Amino acid sequence: MPPTPGTQHTAPAEALRRTEHDMLGDIDVPSDAYYGAHTARAVANFPLTGETLTTRPHLIGALVAVKQAAASANAEVGTLEGTLAAAIVEACAEIRGGALHEQFVVDLIQGGAGTSTNMNANEVIANRALELLGRQRGEYAVLHPLDHVNLGQSTNDVYPTAVKLALDAHLAGLLTAVAGLREAFTVKSAEFADVLKMGRTQLQDAVPMTLGQEFGAFAATLAEDEQRLAEVRPLLHEVNLGGTAIGTGLNARPGYREHAVEHLRRLTGIPTLVSPPDLIEATQDAGVFVQLSGVLKRVAVKLSKICNDLRLLSSGPQTGFGDIALPVRQAGSSIMPGKVNPVIAEAVNQIAFEVIGNDLTVTLAAEGGQLQLNPFEPVIYRSLSAGLDHLAAGVAVLAQHCVRGITANRRRLARTVAASTGLVTALSPALGYETACAVALEAQHSGKPALDLIRERGLLTDAELRELTSPAALTGRPTL
Amino acid sequence: MPPTPGTQHTAPAEALRRTEHDMLGDIDVPSDAYYGAHTARAVANFPLTGETLTTRPHLIGALVAVKQAAASANAEVGTLEGTLAAAIVEACAEIRGGALHEQFVVDLIQGGAGTSTNMNANEVIANRALELLGRQRGEYAVLHPLDHVNLGQSTNDVYPTAVKLALDAHLAGLLTAVAGLREAFTVKSAEFADVLKMGRTQLQDAVPMTLGQEFGAFAATLAEDEQRLAEVRPLLHEVNLGGTAIGTGLNARPGYREHAVEHLRRLTGIPTLVSPPDLIEATQDAGVFVQLSGVLKRVAVKLSKICNDLRLLSSGPQTGFGDIALPVRQAGSSIMPGKVNPVIAEAVNQIAFEVIGNDLTVTLAAEGGQLQLNPFEPVIYRSLSAGLDHLAAGVAVLAQHCVRGITANRRRLARTVAASTGLVTALSPALGYETACAVALEAQHSGKPALDLIRERGLLTDAELRELTSPAALTGRPTL
Amino acid sequence: MPPTPGTQHTAPAEALRRTEHDMLGDIDVPSDAYYGAHTARAVANFPLTGETLTTRPHLIGALVAVKQAAASANAEVGTLEGTLAAAIVEACAEIRGGALHEQFVVDLIQGGAGTSTNMNANEVIANRALELLGRQRGEYAVLHPLDHVNLGQSTNDVYPTAVKLALDAHLAGLLTAVAGLREAFTVKSAEFADVLKMGRTQLQDAVPMTLGQEFGAFAATLAEDEQRLAEVRPLLHEVNLGGTAIGTGLNARPGYREHAVEHLRRLTGIPTLVSPPDLIEATQDAGVFVQLSGVLKRVAVKLSKICNDLRLLSSGPQTGFGDIALPVRQAGSSIMPGKVNPVIAEAVNQIAFEVIGNDLTVTLAAEGGQLQLNPFEPVIYRSLSAGLDHLAAGVAVLAQHCVRGITANRRRLARTVAASTGLVTALSPALGYETACAVALEAQHSGKPALDLIRERGLLTDAELRELTSPAALTGRPTL
Amino acid sequence: MPPTPGTQHTAPAEALRRTEHDMLGDIDVPSDAYYGAHTARAVANFPLTGETLTTRPHLIGALVAVKQAAASANAEVGTLEGTLAAAIVEACAEIRGGALHEQFVVDLIQGGAGTSTNMNANEVIANRALELLGRQRGEYAVLHPLDHVNLGQSTNDVYPTAVKLALDAHLAGLLTAVAGLREAFTVKSAEFADVLKMGRTQLQDAVPMTLGQEFGAFAATLAEDEQRLAEVRPLLHEVNLGGTAIGTGLNARPGYREHAVEHLRRLTGIPTLVSPPDLIEATQDAGVFVQLSGVLKRVAVKLSKICNDLRLLSSGPQTGFGDIALPVRQAGSSIMPGKVNPVIAEAVNQIAFEVIGNDLTVTLAAEGGQLQLNPFEPVIYRSLSAGLDHLAAGVAVLAQHCVRGITANRRRLARTVAASTGLVTALSPALGYETACAVALEAQHSGKPALDLIRERGLLTDAELRELTSPAALTGRPTL
Repeated sequence: MPPTPGTQHTAPAEALRRTEHDMLGDIDVPSDAYYGAHTARAVANFPLTGETLTTRPHLIGALVAVKQAAASANAEVGTLEGTLAAAIVEACAEIRGGALHEQFVVDLIQGGAGTSTNMNANEVIANRALELLGRQRGEYAVLHPLDHVNLGQSTNDVYPTAVKLALDAHLAGLLTAVAGLREAFTVKSAEFADVLKMGRTQLQDAVPMTLGQEFGAFAATLAEDEQRLAEVRPLLHEVNLGGTAIGTGLNARPGYREHAVEHLRRLTGIPTLVSPPDLIEATQDAGVFVQLSGVLKRVAVKLSKICNDLRLLSSGPQTGFGDIALPVRQAGSSIMPGKVNPVIAEAVNQIAFEVIGNDLTVTLAAEGGQLQLNPFEPVIYRSLSAGLDHLAAGVAVLAQHCVRGITANRRRLARTVAASTGLVTALSPALGYETACAVALEAQHSGKPALDLIRERGLLTDAELRELTSPAALTGRPTL
Repeated sequence: MPPTPGTQHTAPAEALRRTEHDMLGDIDVPSDAYYGAHTARAVANFPLTGETLTTRPHLIGALVAVKQAAASANAEVGTLEGTLAAAIVEACAEIRGGALHEQFVVDLIQGGAGTSTNMNANEVIANRALELLGRQRGEYAVLHPLDHVNLGQSTNDVYPTAVKLALDAHLAGLLTAVAGLREAFTVKSAEFADVLKMGRTQLQDAVPMTLGQEFGAFAATLAEDEQRLAEVRPLLHEVNLGGTAIGTGLNARPGYREHAVEHLRRLTGIPTLVSPPDLIEATQDAGVFVQLSGVLKRVAVKLSKICNDLRLLSSGPQTGFGDIALPVRQAGSSIMPGKVNPVIAEAVNQIAFEVIGNDLTVTLAAEGGQLQLNPFEPVIYRSLSAGLDHLAAGVAVLAQHCVRGITANRRRLARTVAASTGLVTALSPALGYETACAVALEAQHSGKPALDLIRERGLLTDAELRELTSPAALTGRPTL
Repeated sequence: MPPTPGTQHTAPAEALRRTEHDMLGDIDVPSDAYYGAHTARAVANFPLTGETLTTRPHLIGALVAVKQAAASANAEVGTLEGTLAAAIVEACAEIRGGALHEQFVVDLIQGGAGTSTNMNANEVIANRALELLGRQRGEYAVLHPLDHVNLGQSTNDVYPTAVKLALDAHLAGLLTAVAGLREAFTVKSAEFADVLKMGRTQLQDAVPMTLGQEFGAFAATLAEDEQRLAEVRPLLHEVNLGGTAIGTGLNARPGYREHAVEHLRRLTGIPTLVSPPDLIEATQDAGVFVQLSGVLKRVAVKLSKICNDLRLLSSGPQTGFGDIALPVRQAGSSIMPGKVNPVIAEAVNQIAFEVIGNDLTVTLAAEGGQLQLNPFEPVIYRSLSAGLDHLAAGVAVLAQHCVRGITANRRRLARTVAASTGLVTALSPALGYETACAVALEAQHSGKPALDLIRERGLLTDAELRELTSPAALTGRPTL
Repeated sequence: MPPTPGTQHTAPAEALRRTEHDMLGDIDVPSDAYYGAHTARAVANFPLTGETLTTRPHLIGALVAVKQAAASANAEVGTLEGTLAAAIVEACAEIRGGALHEQFVVDLIQGGAGTSTNMNANEVIANRALELLGRQRGEYAVLHPLDHVNLGQSTNDVYPTAVKLALDAHLAGLLTAVAGLREAFTVKSAEFADVLKMGRTQLQDAVPMTLGQEFGAFAATLAEDEQRLAEVRPLLHEVNLGGTAIGTGLNARPGYREHAVEHLRRLTGIPTLVSPPDLIEATQDAGVFVQLSGVLKRVAVKLSKICNDLRLLSSGPQTGFGDIALPVRQAGSSIMPGKVNPVIAEAVNQIAFEVIGNDLTVTLAAEGGQLQLNPFEPVIYRSLSAGLDHLAAGVAVLAQHCVRGITANRRRLARTVAASTGLVTALSPALGYETACAVALEAQHSGKPALDLIRERGLLTDAELRELTSPAALTGRPTL
């Protein structure tokens, strides 16, 4: 029975080394490393961000699922011997279960269009499979990272496929979080259904509405975002696996592609995975990433707007809008005692800014692709995965630590509606725009309530006034 | 019979003026102007870009269609007297037919969330309707820009509605142009179906493909863009007309909204126009613009990539790639005789850069909206309409003046395929990756063709070589 | 004596045509056109934005100054015959005086790195010079657009040189406008020097300050912007004139460059014009445009923040901050009588968004340059010149129609300072942070003034309270 | 003697907890934690990116230097008792020496304008100082995080001050790296000084130059970048320390600010640290970050352009430009044997895209600041510090693993110069533009060298040809 993966890590990593070989010659790797020569070269070449593949389990899982699917398919079409395929499949299953993730040591930002990521996976899988076959790591004559694990594949088809599947998983996390926030707003919308307040346009008092309507609009806008996000998923399910180097399928045995995609469907549980009609186009195209990034930016824009609104509505306590109070989460100031700040909303604003910036990074990387391949998918994946995860985290925190605890300043809101000249709008059809204008301006200058002025001058009767300014008439919600 | 609109323009515009009145007091306008006081204030307030509404007939047409629909609906629900409605409808029909566009004099960039644009339309329609009633311009006691033309409306519902309809029209133009370019690439793909060439990844020789496959991928990518663009149209067809100031529908008579939207469907010929479920949300939401802009950016990114590829593929004539030749459109240089440059592709690159920049403008404007309204839709419309139109123009020029005239450098391509070590990839499954690697490197260093080395060493038989390097095997197109 | 330029325009433009010739063969142009074959090709190739060179007199002026300087220099180094040089110089002087601008008909967005712009200038100058020599337009055997007007030049040196000089002129306009706005804020800062108010951080009441300090900060931040903008000007004064095609100076006679730059100094009145040390680098480098654009973006960011602040501070009238009132410039709403909106500030926000978007366009265009030349300077110039001009217009309007008319709501401000718990911060050093915190929270919950709570509990004496809460102590301005 | 900081970490972190107290009530922290209640709240509030302050030693160092300077200054102006000040100073010195960095556990992205970062520092310093005084952690009655460590300070002055100082340190690292890359290009420029090649404009063969000139231009452009970067440093040295909450200096004793800044000069070794003239403006202004980000973007744009050029110039080996060869750093492909890719350049491209995206994040965050404070500096710092560090790493790798090993394909370059029609440009002044054009076109169509055509027709003598096409004449470098 082979040892549990990773248990040989007790020896000092740097003390013992084994020698591997690649196109450039010999190179040493730690003897207990599951990765090999190509990975070691990449580690030396890309000491850039310090963020390794290990930080992205979704990508590791997706890439290894691809490898597993390919091995099964290769066995079925007769290009890979059964015992080798079985060892590869078992190694992949272990890694997908969480093992050996610390062996994915290449920096997320790397040249080579993901080749180093692919090589890292090939090597780890090969060495673990060798162990499972009772062999030593490095015995590549038996089972080779490229000739067997990578058989029928190219980085140019397995990497984009894995990136799409990983992004689909990140996206699922965001969708769950957004649904939670939408639900939190829906609950608040019901809670505040009868709280009348002044609506504001261009930061100026406009006409009345309910606070429930205001929060209901937040829920509605998030529901739309969920739809837009969900629409991207089928695009992520078009995978170019089987296209190999440039989409011509060179070196992939007939039937291999269909088998591999079918296995991948099974492993990922995504029944809608398909091969696109034009594999040449699919290999070079980064359009789906731009699309996802654009929709993600849209979500960020709306969340930032919502956070801006929450901060405005809770501004004060004395000199601001003061419509609502956000829950107190921490002391607001190191110098101003008792100050409470909208810290959760501010954090989400910042994540939104990050996401919008990342969208530009993705755009630039997509535009930079040339001819048969886009070599910049590593930074595309890094930017999108970070944005999706950070946004999901921010959205969850916003629901839990902010929205659910919001309270309405009911007395203050009632007072401002009564005092507002915004009510005059409701009387404008009856008075005519120019008369209504004159009344509103006089009310503002004199400080006298507009309704009193209208009554004094006999412009409308009390009954007319009552009807025109009833909450139901004002807000369009007859059941208020 | 009333005079034809615009025929009174013979008098010197500045010589004769009439006095109008608004909330701020009296203001003079040219006596032959169809616009009035509010427009004149806006002209004074926004001397910013010099681009007036006149430059955007799609917006004028859409806004006036909204006005016409509203007048008809108001007549039907009994809030507008029939003769007034008829005059307004006729005036609107004239303007939609192209009349009086020069009267839309406000700058495209304006504060006030489009109020000045709405006022400009209200005033022009009112004065033309007054003429049609046999009255003088300015006789607002008879027919008033606000009390009658704007009846039951707010800028906050008519302006976003008009902007969406106008963008739908701009978008239709782009879709037509993209379809034309896609078709041009499809034609070339067929023409070049049998031209073998080296594919390139990361600007390095990769494996063979046909030039037809390369051009087919351009067509395929554009087809996807058309789908993404088309998916935005239903979002543009959700119009908040009837929501008035903030979406509560204040001052709009029951039934008015349904009638107005029905008339608008008829006038625009768009049967899918609908009211959204939450008018509060729809009034403040700029999500659809971010979505459209994101998809437009995607189109720009892909077009820029295509243009980059065309410029690369035609680089030379001696020291470049030289796969294809672009048609000669003009002398390339003021100093270098005979130089020919890829000027059309370069122009489209620049439009793509403009569109990507505009996407950021739209993003910022959308994020900046606060509470019940986004006041920045004027710049959103300006940016999107410019991007859509410029891109449509660029795409049309690219199809007509560039793609259709592209020729293949067949001899050069054939020579490079024969000389390429990239063929070794096709032999790698037979040779093993490490042996293949060694052969490829030796071929590069020695200058000796890789196939010769393989033959010399007896690594593969001639029959094997022939089969593995046949065009059909290489490109995955058995019918080549 | 030759006719005044442009006076032959009375004949129907399209009726009479003359035939010109270029590398592609014959082409007709209107017989009264001063431009020729190359321009006509460009008009056909680039029907893109409809914005022609005519809309940019600064660019025409700068380019023609370069041509004039080159002609003078060529005469001095003996490569251009004196009478031809004199005719070119006179033609250039006329155009710089405003003549023939309508002959610059090429679209601002064009492929070819500005070649068509350069050709347009060469042709107009040549034909006008021919007239001045008593010849017919088109008699290029006598005086040729390329062999004489463009002598010793390449688009690649004259176009970037002209673009830099033109941008310098646009920039001067912005600097004047910003200085005006700064001065307006300085005046207001003095006017409001004694108006105490609550400062706000994170939209929450913080500690007191004066409204004069708030406006003074706006002035200070603009002063910094002026410095940053001014620092870019010397970079614009490094011109690659004389480098010809790629910076090697091929085809320029020794001494020509020094003479030409000297003439250009004289013609532009910019004594600091210099040749950069590395003309190869200068020819291909777009760094100065990225730098200018980055600083312009900074100005836009700050202006947008200022406008956001003005809109916040004037929000209300009943339910907002209400610290200040902006001057009323127009009716705010088509439906809400008496509503006044911050329309000028909103317009400037939008211009800021445009400028920030343009910065991205410039960035993309700069990044896209390859090897010895950046072919995308046309869109760079279009974006930067539009941004500079629109921002200058917006800033001027903001000063004139908004800032100068701002008034303080003094009573309201005084009331809010007295009521604020923010004063507790000033007492925190005396009370200790935790005690101060407890007092502040109790004041907020009970609605009782914090100072009363402190007095009641004997935490501080009246004398201590008076000293610690004096306006001078609070705002750090002893002379308040 | 107090224990060495951090040695108490042997106990299971979660097992033992102590109770702390803040405005919200009691909260437990690990008993061996140096941080306290405010930090614990922040950890719960911001589980966002997983990147903690610990990842940014420059920020920890700068913030703690500020705290140390403040303590010394407070002692000098008499607000802080000497023994307390001494303990704080010693604790700060330890942390600046590298101790306790793992105690900075708050996420880099946080709401509250950096308050949680400041609190984290206050608490760690206080608890370490208490230990140094022989007290227990949490004995805040003796030495309090806010009343003593934060004395005379606000997050709003210490955080921006620390951020600027930290960015100055990050920037120093980038400057070193850029200088190294510039030097590498300078060395190559000398090495290739005599290698003649065709320059290319718009990807088309233009006129000759040397490869040394090409690499010299890279060095020159980087030298300019270094200047632009260096110009930002004085702006980072304007620190608002002493302005406290909003810049009025409330609660800071007279003289404190001057003393604190003087101590900070000493501690940081930056003699140019100054207080800005308007502390109100300085507190709210994010202009310096936009400026730094804009310059950083400029560097990224240029680096990306350089990497694009290196990738173009090394494209091939058979079907590309092939002017140079980049050093082989790793196997290029998992499927294509012997393929070598420009992986280092591609990695730097991606970092450039990240930096350009980050610039947008910074822009958005700067624009979002309101009134007396920008609460979004945490994301500004995160984006800028990541960009500066990643760019420095990428630049260093580019110099070491790519540029220094570049070789010229001398034979190929010589061959292309001889074959190029680009030489005709050098003859254009002698031939006239139209004749030269005809010759060039015929040469291209016939494949016959242009010089032969000229000789055949007797257009120029051999002597003239020799003189006009000498390397010195062609490249403007007489010493070639």
